[in-house]
Amino acid sequence: MDGAWYKEWEQGRRYIIKIKPGEKLKERLIVFAQQAGVKNAVVISAVGSVRDAFFRGIKAGAKRPITEPRMRQHHLTGPLELLGLEGNLISDDSGEIDCHLHVILGKSSGEVAGGHLFDAEVFASCEILLTEMVVQGVERHISKSAGTPTIFISEE
Amino acid sequence: MDGAWYKEWEQGRRYIIKIKPGEKLKERLIVFAQQAGVKNAVVISAVGSVRDAFFRGIKAGAKRPITEPRMRQHHLTGPLELLGLEGNLISDDSGEIDCHLHVILGKSSGEVAGGHLFDAEVFASCEILLTEMVVQGVERHISKSAGTPTIFISEE
Amino acid sequence: MDGAWYKEWEQGRRYIIKIKPGEKLKERLIVFAQQAGVKNAVVISAVGSVRDAFFRGIKAGAKRPITEPRMRQHHLTGPLELLGLEGNLISDDSGEIDCHLHVILGKSSGEVAGGHLFDAEVFASCEILLTEMVVQGVERHISKSAGTPTIFISEE
Repeated sequence: MDGAWYKEWEQGRRYIIKIKPGEKLKERLIVFAQQAGVKNAVVISAVGSVRDAFFRGIKAGAKRPITEPRMRQHHLTGPLELLGLEGNLISDDSGEIDCHLHVILGKSSGEVAGGHLFDAEVFASCEILLTEMVVQGVERHISKSAGTPTIFISEE
Repeated sequence: MDGAWYKEWEQGRRYIIKIKPGEKLKERLIVFAQQAGVKNAVVISAVGSVRDAFFRGIKAGAKRPITEPRMRQHHLTGPLELLGLEGNLISDDSGEIDCHLHVILGKSSGEVAGGHLFDAEVFASCEILLTEMVVQGVERHISKSAGTPTIFISEE
Repeated sequence: MDGAWYKEWEQGRRYIIKIKPGEKLKERLIVFAQQAGVKNAVVISAVGSVRDAFFRGIKAGAKRPITEPRMRQHHLTGPLELLGLEGNLISDDSGEIDCHLHVILGKSSGEVAGGHLFDAEVFASCEILLTEMVVQGVERHISKSAGTPTIFISEE
């Protein structure tokens, strides 16, 4: 059973979130979701600046599944402009919120860096706009073939 | 007649789409739109990873219209983190879906590449969130002055 | 009084905006907001191309607040693919629209540049999708500790 490959969802509540200097971006997003009782959400927009950004890329030529030795970890002290934050919060099968975020960062030089975000500390400000997704039968858990947590959409 | 420069639209259905490893990202988005009967849509968010990404940039110093010799084509084998996918699906005057997508890709080095997406193959996973746009009088067709397919908004 | 750190908002009108070649991207977004009577909005998506992009990064190792000497200004003549435009329009305490935008740009080489956008001229086309935010008690004004205009969310 492969499940469906797309599914309709309803829009729930919408939030503007301000993460303060010195706070961790991803950690605070999860705290927000717990406090607001949001199970599933998608980031619409994020602007601000961060420092001590930890993220990873996939090694060139890597095969699936994505395992630790096939990733390359990065740490930029910055500060950096937060140019983009793409991703979603989807609960896993135990109801825990799994936050899958990719980050795009602007350096002093005008060059851009980015990857799969572990976490980063907000530098001067961080404004996130987010929409709750109301949907049944969508979960994220580890995919054996991909090696990474992946959404699964159950058939109706 | 230049038409209007902005127009209100209504939000239609919202979808979560999972494109599987080995499938082509843009090709599948068009299949999705055909299967779901979506004429116009905007990508809200996309995260995942891809390989064999084909995209283009515009040559520095190029003039309008954007013609073939004024573009530069790129092919990255990757795999790469999919950091961003911006764009929309707008039907042309024959009702065919025209998919205008720009891609932002994270390399192993943490550097970022990107441009106008031709297509890319999903590597480990790809999660796309999309909103249907319900709107009349918006079409995309070739602009003689721009050289590229461009939206046209008709006056009320 | 620190105020709240997140707040719910209601979705207002949605717009598709076409900015024409030769026009300034940020300038036109503000004209749009004035003409349509939009006080607060978030950019969902933007694709197109620009030239003469002026933006800034934060100098590596800079401390807060972000002051002029702690920023580094950039000017790219291009043309460049517009790969991303993240940000929002939030009114300040006098009702003036403050447009906070970060830009992600694709070079001819396939490399990507970006930062906090001052402004850029549209090259061949520019398609922006935007949602009005209906919310009370959210304003943007200069934060003394951050050095930059920042949103403030008042307690209920």
